[in-house]
Amino acid sequence: MVNVTIWNEFVHEKIHDEAKEVYPEGIHKVLADGLAGEGYAIRTATLDQPEHGLTDDVLNTTDVLIWWGHMAHDRVNDQVVSKVVKRVLDGMGFIVLHSGHFSKPFKALMGTSCDLKWREAKEQEIIWCVNPNHPIAEGIESHILLEHEEMYGEFFDIPTPDELIFLSNFAGGEVFRSGCTFKRGEGKIFYFRPGHETYPTYYNPQVMKVISNSIRWAHPTPHTKPVYGYSEPVRPLGDILV
Amino acid sequence: MVNVTIWNEFVHEKIHDEAKEVYPEGIHKVLADGLAGEGYAIRTATLDQPEHGLTDDVLNTTDVLIWWGHMAHDRVNDQVVSKVVKRVLDGMGFIVLHSGHFSKPFKALMGTSCDLKWREAKEQEIIWCVNPNHPIAEGIESHILLEHEEMYGEFFDIPTPDELIFLSNFAGGEVFRSGCTFKRGEGKIFYFRPGHETYPTYYNPQVMKVISNSIRWAHPTPHTKPVYGYSEPVRPLGDILV
Amino acid sequence: MVNVTIWNEFVHEKIHDEAKEVYPEGIHKVLADGLAGEGYAIRTATLDQPEHGLTDDVLNTTDVLIWWGHMAHDRVNDQVVSKVVKRVLDGMGFIVLHSGHFSKPFKALMGTSCDLKWREAKEQEIIWCVNPNHPIAEGIESHILLEHEEMYGEFFDIPTPDELIFLSNFAGGEVFRSGCTFKRGEGKIFYFRPGHETYPTYYNPQVMKVISNSIRWAHPTPHTKPVYGYSEPVRPLGDILV
Amino acid sequence: MVNVTIWNEFVHEKIHDEAKEVYPEGIHKVLADGLAGEGYAIRTATLDQPEHGLTDDVLNTTDVLIWWGHMAHDRVNDQVVSKVVKRVLDGMGFIVLHSGHFSKPFKALMGTSCDLKWREAKEQEIIWCVNPNHPIAEGIESHILLEHEEMYGEFFDIPTPDELIFLSNFAGGEVFRSGCTFKRGEGKIFYFRPGHETYPTYYNPQVMKVISNSIRWAHPTPHTKPVYGYSEPVRPLGDILV
Repeated sequence: MVNVTIWNEFVHEKIHDEAKEVYPEGIHKVLADGLAGEGYAIRTATLDQPEHGLTDDVLNTTDVLIWWGHMAHDRVNDQVVSKVVKRVLDGMGFIVLHSGHFSKPFKALMGTSCDLKWREAKEQEIIWCVNPNHPIAEGIESHILLEHEEMYGEFFDIPTPDELIFLSNFAGGEVFRSGCTFKRGEGKIFYFRPGHETYPTYYNPQVMKVISNSIRWAHPTPHTKPVYGYSEPVRPLGDILV
Repeated sequence: MVNVTIWNEFVHEKIHDEAKEVYPEGIHKVLADGLAGEGYAIRTATLDQPEHGLTDDVLNTTDVLIWWGHMAHDRVNDQVVSKVVKRVLDGMGFIVLHSGHFSKPFKALMGTSCDLKWREAKEQEIIWCVNPNHPIAEGIESHILLEHEEMYGEFFDIPTPDELIFLSNFAGGEVFRSGCTFKRGEGKIFYFRPGHETYPTYYNPQVMKVISNSIRWAHPTPHTKPVYGYSEPVRPLGDILV
Repeated sequence: MVNVTIWNEFVHEKIHDEAKEVYPEGIHKVLADGLAGEGYAIRTATLDQPEHGLTDDVLNTTDVLIWWGHMAHDRVNDQVVSKVVKRVLDGMGFIVLHSGHFSKPFKALMGTSCDLKWREAKEQEIIWCVNPNHPIAEGIESHILLEHEEMYGEFFDIPTPDELIFLSNFAGGEVFRSGCTFKRGEGKIFYFRPGHETYPTYYNPQVMKVISNSIRWAHPTPHTKPVYGYSEPVRPLGDILV
Repeated sequence: MVNVTIWNEFVHEKIHDEAKEVYPEGIHKVLADGLAGEGYAIRTATLDQPEHGLTDDVLNTTDVLIWWGHMAHDRVNDQVVSKVVKRVLDGMGFIVLHSGHFSKPFKALMGTSCDLKWREAKEQEIIWCVNPNHPIAEGIESHILLEHEEMYGEFFDIPTPDELIFLSNFAGGEVFRSGCTFKRGEGKIFYFRPGHETYPTYYNPQVMKVISNSIRWAHPTPHTKPVYGYSEPVRPLGDILV
């Protein structure tokens, strides 16, 4: 059983009519609904909860953390951010959605500005798979078409992704590396672009299929923990040392 | 003319006899001597100078910054660290030597622990080139042999390097990814493993050749600065929008 | 159920005493024994069988093909090679062992010479994991120690691997990229270095664990087949065309 | 002085009015004109010349080979193809344009089908830079806009590129990895997508700037040739061997 925690800042959906209309109970609720039946144990957490709902107990029992944030990035407590980053380096999967590109934990794990171009114009986004046999693309056709999305355009200031899974074409002419994987420490990270708060993107079954696939992919592989620090030679040095 | 600043914490060489013997005027002095005649404008800077010698004026006129630190990483001021990171993302080349793997700016740019295995046993290191036509390997034979070095062993907790240039074999049996390149923002980063403070590594002409090559490689390529933020469509949206 | 076919040229073990002693019934037999109990449907095939045992029927029902060859690479029929390559591009997993680096299908899939340095001196090889949470490394400690192996040394003339999993340290001083993954077409390829015919490498449980892991990894992910050729626009061109 | 040879099959421009109109003296002539003044020594070669103009003498004195072909790929002699591949592995730079994705030497070096989606509909292509400080992008703004081009769409069946420099957005909705680098052996390869024979793409100064940059990038870096084959130990094995 994969333990998934969906974190959502849950601010737009309480104060902006357009977002409230599409996600009346919050983006996290629609994400959780969309993942129901996939066999995960799902919890949600939001900014306004104590410790943003990301207590030690929650983080330590989370296999994969999903993150959606936008207008309140700077209200996320730095200690919580440090704990999230530490847990990712320690093996927790981390799936960063849309405007989460500017979230504190994602920027800390990337080491770059994570800046990009953007435009809100209800324009068409077509997301193409460029890695057809990757587990994150399982069950996805050649492309996903979203009639209305916010545009994100290159240059996207991230480190070279370990794997490129999806590329987006926007009607206004831009492109974007929309599905990228990164390994950091023992943790696997997937950034997935779509999901503006005023469009019904997370009701799209193909978008949710990608997110569900990425949970299985990001779920920590059982592995031997790396050992660091002082280390005895494996091969005796006696005969070699001068 | 490439403007190079060599930063050295310069602590070991003042307080430890073994280091003082090998580098009486500091590692930075030997690095600067080794690069003389290569056509760079070289300055040095050390921890005990005001702002560690990395004033805005110095940083803003530095094309490539070389970094050696070890026992005093935590004495490096966080504001200076932020400025170094910002300058790298803005295009400044950054060459991190040996124990600089644990320096604050390198860790911030990598986003990982940068931890590793180590051993001080005067053991033999053989550094092999696995990228023979890379400009950083220009003029280097198949391998560089260092009779006495500190061992660094895998797992080295860094993001997947963009390019792997050198791998080390240690007599005691370990391996290490000793020459790695990374791009972060508009800046190029080269991590080069050898250079323990008690061994005469930076007097080795092949080691210095690699460092000199890496300066030329890391020197910012003239380029168009990325533009971020709100962006008008390149292709008119009028006919496409519903 | 994963259908695995183990291909072995099976020449050394019939004509060279040293190899016969270690692998009296052939390397393929020891590989098959080592994988028994892992839940795979295993077949073997050898050079001297009709079509080298790789008939259309066998290839088309093989999910993952393991390849060991050395002295008889040039006796492998070019048509069989083409079929193997085609099946890999079509999704079949391909695990290439040791001297298989010079096999025709591996070279065709890599596009390079796949040349390397070598030495037979019964020397110690220590294989280190540099990708600890990769599924191919599941259950493997920090390193695998093989008392006697043939040395393979860099520069290994392969394309940059998609992922680097293992690096070897040889007693004589060399290093080698011993565990490398590549994607080609819809197929996943894993090259794994150890396995000289005169040493009991394939009786080592850790070596066999890696091979077994790599079978699971290389097993084709269910996916949408890419479509190529003429393609209608997804977004109507009428309003855009001049 | 970089010795550049521009190879063009030069068939369309002799038999198809649309191509003849745009490139009356052949695509190679316009490429050569566009590179004049860049300081290269330029030769051209075409299919109908003896040995397609790629004699041993020409190939051995070529630093960077540019390749344009489309309808006559199968008329390129296999021996010439082998020589081109060998020279690339030996260090010659190789710049493959547009429909050259299906040329014999490119496919041999990639090891994949190099297949893709396509459409000729005079549609708009916008080529975005996703690697702004790469030498191949020097002097290029955020994007290059081509009013009329043939569409190439993903999935493009190539190995993971070493570096991704450009991505294309097509008006009809597709995306494409339009600027990709690969290292094979000692040679550097750049694939650049635009350049259909009926559109004036190679008169575009930005397109020619990219090609010129890629020549400088692909020009072989002076380097030590790798040595292969039997190799004496660097570190004496006597004391270690059992």
